[in-house]
Amino acid sequence: MKLITLLTDFGLQDGYPAIMKGVIWGIAPEVQIADLTHSIPAQDILAGALALGRAAPYFPPGTIHVAVVDPGVGTQRRAMAARIGECFFVGPDNGLCTVLLDQAAGAIQAVQLDRPRFWLPEVSHSFHGRDIFAPVAAHLATGVALDELGSPLAQGVVRLIIPQPTPLAAPGRRGWRGQVIHVDAFGNLATNFTRQHVPSTGNPCLRIAGQEICGLASTFGEGRPGDLIAMLDSAGQLSLCEVNGSAARRLTVAVGEPVELYWQD
Amino acid sequence: MKLITLLTDFGLQDGYPAIMKGVIWGIAPEVQIADLTHSIPAQDILAGALALGRAAPYFPPGTIHVAVVDPGVGTQRRAMAARIGECFFVGPDNGLCTVLLDQAAGAIQAVQLDRPRFWLPEVSHSFHGRDIFAPVAAHLATGVALDELGSPLAQGVVRLIIPQPTPLAAPGRRGWRGQVIHVDAFGNLATNFTRQHVPSTGNPCLRIAGQEICGLASTFGEGRPGDLIAMLDSAGQLSLCEVNGSAARRLTVAVGEPVELYWQD
Amino acid sequence: MKLITLLTDFGLQDGYPAIMKGVIWGIAPEVQIADLTHSIPAQDILAGALALGRAAPYFPPGTIHVAVVDPGVGTQRRAMAARIGECFFVGPDNGLCTVLLDQAAGAIQAVQLDRPRFWLPEVSHSFHGRDIFAPVAAHLATGVALDELGSPLAQGVVRLIIPQPTPLAAPGRRGWRGQVIHVDAFGNLATNFTRQHVPSTGNPCLRIAGQEICGLASTFGEGRPGDLIAMLDSAGQLSLCEVNGSAARRLTVAVGEPVELYWQD
Repeated sequence: MKLITLLTDFGLQDGYPAIMKGVIWGIAPEVQIADLTHSIPAQDILAGALALGRAAPYFPPGTIHVAVVDPGVGTQRRAMAARIGECFFVGPDNGLCTVLLDQAAGAIQAVQLDRPRFWLPEVSHSFHGRDIFAPVAAHLATGVALDELGSPLAQGVVRLIIPQPTPLAAPGRRGWRGQVIHVDAFGNLATNFTRQHVPSTGNPCLRIAGQEICGLASTFGEGRPGDLIAMLDSAGQLSLCEVNGSAARRLTVAVGEPVELYWQD
Repeated sequence: MKLITLLTDFGLQDGYPAIMKGVIWGIAPEVQIADLTHSIPAQDILAGALALGRAAPYFPPGTIHVAVVDPGVGTQRRAMAARIGECFFVGPDNGLCTVLLDQAAGAIQAVQLDRPRFWLPEVSHSFHGRDIFAPVAAHLATGVALDELGSPLAQGVVRLIIPQPTPLAAPGRRGWRGQVIHVDAFGNLATNFTRQHVPSTGNPCLRIAGQEICGLASTFGEGRPGDLIAMLDSAGQLSLCEVNGSAARRLTVAVGEPVELYWQD
Repeated sequence: MKLITLLTDFGLQDGYPAIMKGVIWGIAPEVQIADLTHSIPAQDILAGALALGRAAPYFPPGTIHVAVVDPGVGTQRRAMAARIGECFFVGPDNGLCTVLLDQAAGAIQAVQLDRPRFWLPEVSHSFHGRDIFAPVAAHLATGVALDELGSPLAQGVVRLIIPQPTPLAAPGRRGWRGQVIHVDAFGNLATNFTRQHVPSTGNPCLRIAGQEICGLASTFGEGRPGDLIAMLDSAGQLSLCEVNGSAARRLTVAVGEPVELYWQD
């Protein structure tokens, strides 16, 4: 059973993701299709790349991820398909697969989608998800080899720069300066600090929006409702959470908000 | 592999579309089900008909479209199933399949759903999507013939009047008067002008909400972020878009807004 | 064909439900998965229990319902799986399956999920939906026996108290005092009165938010647009509805609002 996932910034209201499913099932009637999310903020390629990176590791080997956050649709930006470690990516060559590439264990092979026989007969200028990416993913699912779908991608794949923490230097303190990179539906604030940034001893503190939270919790249950806590979340990122509440609303912060992680030297 | 799609105004929060899936899979365990959209504005039959028309052409022949935007549920409005060209429609006889009918190439055969043996044993007065339409679609998917499901639909199918552009007569100018018929999640404004309304030469202009946009773009890439552009969208409709933005928010307009398309004679 | 449903308070934006699907399909590639809803208000176990109770009766026997509204994730609250009549439940032992238990015809057998060999290799403190419940449901779908998945659940299953109507005693009147227990996307207000609370004769009235609605309609069609009507809804609950409108917005009420049902003695 082949598995295809869809991630877009289309929203669910207009039926665009369903149209992609119709195209896929017309070519590959047996595949299972999972919607990763269609709520990526419009044109936010970085948010799409991060969401794909959070989800992909939990799908079985061979899963084909179709991702369409595509402000350059209809322009000279290339369309691509790639084997990235154990999974496949189909979408625009605009950085959407950056986190997949960073996580990949195993070979990477990428092609430029330049063979219209694997597309819909008519290609619009604004909906390549339907006209190119969905049919290509379906053909891949039916067993067409990757290098049949297009020519090798010259000059490599476009990559985004994922914001990384930088060392914090202050008298008597060590730590990192980072930022919020994702706010989930609960209002939990995921930072770009991971386990590797957290000291194994000491009492690390986080500073965000003028608030200081010291100590790491390991579960929500260690706080009382309304407490702000810091914990490593289920994706391995250090997160700020309000127990049974929304840290995002409490602190009125969004993606990009600076965060400091520090401890006594 | 049989394919059923669902389109409703139920929203996703209450689980009503899932209940329809449970009913379908109880009768036809092997079908694939795609949610077209459940965000049709409440009771807006025209919006439902248009959304169905945009999506249906991309589904494989034999797909069964179940559509439920049904302000007359429980009253004398008839329930129907029909073969419309290459696809099937199951839903209320209230105009929801108008655009499918307009697009159909091939025979149309419609029946009134008047045989309770294909329904759930108990039929409520307010959720025929669950009690009648889902089980009928499932029986259709398992191979029950259309004319088994009900009697021929007397007096034909109810049709909506889809707003059409009218000629614009002004000294020295030619063109059309039309309106916005769909606003998508990006805030793109689709009008009821299609390729046939656009002159092959000259420099057509659109006027909407006191703004004039001249010339047609063929991709978003021809504008800069923030530009208002006009282009034929992926459904073949002339649309107004703000590059990397929302034309609907920029112009504060909604479905029904008058638009003029004109050019020098 | 095995069927798994998912109900959570995760929302759709972050991809958490899709991650659960990836885990399930990695273990049980052939199952069908239906999203019941992912819009349960955050941490609202009662709303989750009620939504599960509305949907489950319409799924075929053997369906596995995975439900995750789990404020106690990572604490001492137990994880459970159970056969409840003809269906299965997998989720936290926090009352989420209360309505399923109330509705069950047939035996109930519950186990505590205490055997990590049926989980993901790494278990986080905050996403047991992914790490425990999804893989356990998938193993159940592939044929692992319930009592393989864990030890018998000591001391029984946690149950919520579902608010029940109480008799109304007033001179010359009989009736019940109840409350709104669900507001759907249309703004219909479902109360905790059911058919059994409604007298078979007489002219019952409802009082809510200072308004009185007398008589029961059997369809929306008995009122005119804008009318407030009371009717037994498709789940068998006495509901207040505005024809073609939103009773919730009209009355500005929410879940918990007191309602009286009464009639002349």
